[in-house]
Amino acid sequence: MNKQELIHQIKIWLKEAAEKIRAVQIKTLKVDQKTNRKDLVTNMDREVQAFLIEKIQAYNPEAKILAEEEGYSELESFEGQVFVIDPIDGTMNFVLEQENFCIMLGVYQDGVGQLGFIYDVMKEALYWGGKDLGVYMNDHPLTKPEDLRLKDGLIGLNGYLFSHNRWNVRTIGEQSMGVRIYGCAGLEMIALLKGKHIGYIANLSPWDYGAGNVLLAEFGMKYSGISGEKLKFRGREYYIAATPQAYDEIRALIAAADSLNK
Amino acid sequence: MNKQELIHQIKIWLKEAAEKIRAVQIKTLKVDQKTNRKDLVTNMDREVQAFLIEKIQAYNPEAKILAEEEGYSELESFEGQVFVIDPIDGTMNFVLEQENFCIMLGVYQDGVGQLGFIYDVMKEALYWGGKDLGVYMNDHPLTKPEDLRLKDGLIGLNGYLFSHNRWNVRTIGEQSMGVRIYGCAGLEMIALLKGKHIGYIANLSPWDYGAGNVLLAEFGMKYSGISGEKLKFRGREYYIAATPQAYDEIRALIAAADSLNK
Repeated sequence: MNKQELIHQIKIWLKEAAEKIRAVQIKTLKVDQKTNRKDLVTNMDREVQAFLIEKIQAYNPEAKILAEEEGYSELESFEGQVFVIDPIDGTMNFVLEQENFCIMLGVYQDGVGQLGFIYDVMKEALYWGGKDLGVYMNDHPLTKPEDLRLKDGLIGLNGYLFSHNRWNVRTIGEQSMGVRIYGCAGLEMIALLKGKHIGYIANLSPWDYGAGNVLLAEFGMKYSGISGEKLKFRGREYYIAATPQAYDEIRALIAAADSLNK
Repeated sequence: MNKQELIHQIKIWLKEAAEKIRAVQIKTLKVDQKTNRKDLVTNMDREVQAFLIEKIQAYNPEAKILAEEEGYSELESFEGQVFVIDPIDGTMNFVLEQENFCIMLGVYQDGVGQLGFIYDVMKEALYWGGKDLGVYMNDHPLTKPEDLRLKDGLIGLNGYLFSHNRWNVRTIGEQSMGVRIYGCAGLEMIALLKGKHIGYIANLSPWDYGAGNVLLAEFGMKYSGISGEKLKFRGREYYIAATPQAYDEIRALIAAADSLNK
């Protein structure tokens, strides 16, 4: 594959998908519940996913796809080229706020992250980059963030873990400069990449971190499952990402809670 | 006072203040702690406040001023014309994110809210309006939000109340569609005014709600202290604002916690 050509193509697909979303009349949107009343999907989630899959398959009929909606949500093997897609990350925000949501797409080769794209649709800000390529916002290169400590930055937290102090997550929040909850993994990843937040703890599916991890890795950030384990890329799992120093501090606080069986 | 002329003047002052803030080189910013390590003030907070006070005093030498920084933070009487100012609401976001902060200014006459201005500085979006005037974003009139119930919308919560379930606030969050934490009262007020959130519970000072309350009242929203009492406009106090239906549901849940002495 020619990487520059693939980047060029993906940018065109994402911009076309974003235009479709921005053109939607919110009153005509069809909203369905998935597993519970707070787990929403709209016809736009499905349409954007189908659109991206069609483009990917025309580009590479061999490519495998792992994506949020209907029939694409598990993958047996990561051999070859794999596209990880979240057509609308932050569907609740899309439905209720009509802003603060992203399209996310990651490209992996034999399990290794190659390219990541996070598109803040309403701000028209595309964060993208990859292994040995750097990270960009539209055409502007981003600067690698400072390796700040937990006490020196803001942290994005999952509301359940924070409000129930599961694994010391409330304590982690209190040791930071402040807790933010955006309801959109993509926006949390962007805040990390721009050096605005120092960490993020959440309950995520593979399409929530597939794109972001490639960009975080390029900037030397650390990420893992809640106990430091490798991410499974299968089903939901608790997730940590942070600057290297904050990551170690967060992991130590989680381990302390684990040892108390909290 | 000619209200239209005052609105015109205030818009000019706020835009000039916002330009000063946007021109700041973040590395030259002088950041001090006030009551604790998370309570920050910068030289820009002080400069913007001094700038606005100078403009107000030139406009009306009789006007009283209630404002966040140094020497203006208490007022004995609300007789006559009172300006309530937060020069930078969300100072932590200003310092760490260089976005997601506001300038806020409210105008009261004999204790009754007349005008409110909330300026999202980095988005260049000025939300303003007042009693019998409507509410606008720059030049566009906003539509009065639907009177949604707690279960049908997002809610902005104070992290301490949420994570400690003080006054049932965690339960309130769980009954909503989702919790958001932005770290900026102005952005929470804007989300309410645009119908994107249905409620907001926080620990605020008068300059955090002085402008917003005028706009919320114009849209028929309810607000009060945590137990339904009138706001004191003196010192920090717990604060609720919401759509009328959500307000009553929130108050009932807080009252239930109060009766359990939680």
